[in-house]
Amino acid sequence: MHGWHRLLGAGFAALMTFPATAQPIEVGEIGSFHIGGREVTLSGLPTREIVFTQGAAPFKSDPNGDFEVEQMYVQYVKLAHPRAKFPLLMVHGGGLSGVTWETKPDGQPGWQMYFLRHGHDVYISDAVERGRASWARYPEIFKTEPFFRAKKEAWELFRIGPPDSYQTDPSKRVAYPGAKFPTASFDQFVKQGVPRWATNDAATQAAYDAFVQKICPCVIVVHSQGGAFAMNMALHAPDKIKAIIAAEPSGAPDPAKVDAATIKSVPHLFVWGDHFEAETLWKKIRPNVERWRDTLVAAQVPVDWVELPQRGITGNSHMMMMDTNSDQIADLIQDWMGRNGLMN
Amino acid sequence: MHGWHRLLGAGFAALMTFPATAQPIEVGEIGSFHIGGREVTLSGLPTREIVFTQGAAPFKSDPNGDFEVEQMYVQYVKLAHPRAKFPLLMVHGGGLSGVTWETKPDGQPGWQMYFLRHGHDVYISDAVERGRASWARYPEIFKTEPFFRAKKEAWELFRIGPPDSYQTDPSKRVAYPGAKFPTASFDQFVKQGVPRWATNDAATQAAYDAFVQKICPCVIVVHSQGGAFAMNMALHAPDKIKAIIAAEPSGAPDPAKVDAATIKSVPHLFVWGDHFEAETLWKKIRPNVERWRDTLVAAQVPVDWVELPQRGITGNSHMMMMDTNSDQIADLIQDWMGRNGLMN
Repeated sequence: MHGWHRLLGAGFAALMTFPATAQPIEVGEIGSFHIGGREVTLSGLPTREIVFTQGAAPFKSDPNGDFEVEQMYVQYVKLAHPRAKFPLLMVHGGGLSGVTWETKPDGQPGWQMYFLRHGHDVYISDAVERGRASWARYPEIFKTEPFFRAKKEAWELFRIGPPDSYQTDPSKRVAYPGAKFPTASFDQFVKQGVPRWATNDAATQAAYDAFVQKICPCVIVVHSQGGAFAMNMALHAPDKIKAIIAAEPSGAPDPAKVDAATIKSVPHLFVWGDHFEAETLWKKIRPNVERWRDTLVAAQVPVDWVELPQRGITGNSHMMMMDTNSDQIADLIQDWMGRNGLMN
Repeated sequence: MHGWHRLLGAGFAALMTFPATAQPIEVGEIGSFHIGGREVTLSGLPTREIVFTQGAAPFKSDPNGDFEVEQMYVQYVKLAHPRAKFPLLMVHGGGLSGVTWETKPDGQPGWQMYFLRHGHDVYISDAVERGRASWARYPEIFKTEPFFRAKKEAWELFRIGPPDSYQTDPSKRVAYPGAKFPTASFDQFVKQGVPRWATNDAATQAAYDAFVQKICPCVIVVHSQGGAFAMNMALHAPDKIKAIIAAEPSGAPDPAKVDAATIKSVPHLFVWGDHFEAETLWKKIRPNVERWRDTLVAAQVPVDWVELPQRGITGNSHMMMMDTNSDQIADLIQDWMGRNGLMN
């Protein structure tokens, strides 16, 4: 049934999780930048009187004028002595920001520290409209209202517990048996959420493409909604993207509209967690990714498709980078990068 | 006229700016967390049909449910071998996020890297409602609409150029003669801006106070609108705050409402740039800070008040941490910390 994917080496079994109390890392530079976006001028809107409560005088706020909008934010940590051939771009999913990759909600180190310790320069971004990328007035600039993810949706869509298992009272929430998500830290995780818009995809893609032009060649690790953006980043700059590692991408390009053969040189690794059986939205959207996978394989793009439960790794949620066995999954990715010639 | 401030040592003249191509820094851990906030439950709001453009199926978005709101975001870099006695909390100003302290808009290293290189563990936060702290639906949770800073306001209020010197065309903008802000990077700077609310001060202060309880004892470096929050952080936890370094605070506590004597052990350094003469909002708000300074001095709180032009350092904007001579100002701060016993 999975004959089309390349077998992953037996090396997995021998992999060791990097010790949590590791040596210091030697860092050459920590920095950030905004990239992409455009100028917009607003006019004809009425002024508002703004009164602050902390000692500052009231002032008239004029919503008109020139604004920078639709930029994205990128923060990087460059090692003094990287061992990876290319920097690693870590691209978050929907309703989230680059915080996805940082310290896990339970306080344990996340994939940012893992990949730094394993020799990668790491670039973590906030997409257009999210986090430090900022957002623009609507409906004048962004065309629609944003929407916010409630805890119930996060608990169930991210497959921490089955449909209708969410409860307001944390002690009454029932996760899947053997769930790897640190459920006691679920509310802490929810604090990472940011509002999102459904109508900013073109601007988001444009900023990602500009990011690629500035920083790459590179390898992309991407999650969920970021998946389709990352796959388009590769299609728009095939020479710049050296690999795509997609953790549960929620979408993919339409094979009828693009030529997958142009990214023949870009190996892909897909990683999937557990408990897809009951979640209805995933049943609708995952086939799009499977269709793209089949298109890639037909076009001779190297593809590895890993369903963790088939390897005996059970209970992983959509937020696998925050699950208690996140290092085990990162080991799998790191090993794959090594076998794909991406490490020095 | 300035007999009440302690003279700063002649050591300034001997200070050297740390070389830009410095040694790697040894980092023990890079991480982040959200802190503060509360749960809110919304009900009775109508659902919306959301259609994504990137391959995902439409879904019904239910704005009702449980949400985490009013948390703040903190990112830290801990050195393997800090030389400062206490971690440094870097607190941004209004309409901005922690990006204030990172790489400058002209691509040069900012105060984050400066203070890391000088031996401080650095904690950079995004206040409630800003950047990676996220924001909440209004008017149901946040009580008012946000407002956005236009470029003209930033150019003039931040004293890069005089009133009415802003032009849409960058080549026509006229900065103050000798302005230290990298004016060619002004549009890049504006991309760092985030929307703000005037009605979240209590929640913002509560989150900052929780941050202090988690991380301090500490030293605070604070900018602009952050000033009043930082001064209240000290008033609310006098034993936890070992010094406040305020770059152009835009507000301060009301001396009639608090007891400055409780923070007798907290030395304060105030740093002011150039060109206050023409800007009308600053004329209204700076006297509040001067009144607080006088209150501190009367209460025997150690206060140093530095007006950079009086030291021959001219042309600095409100964004002094981004000005071309930002290292020179950081040297002044670093020297002050040394003389106040804050370094090992």
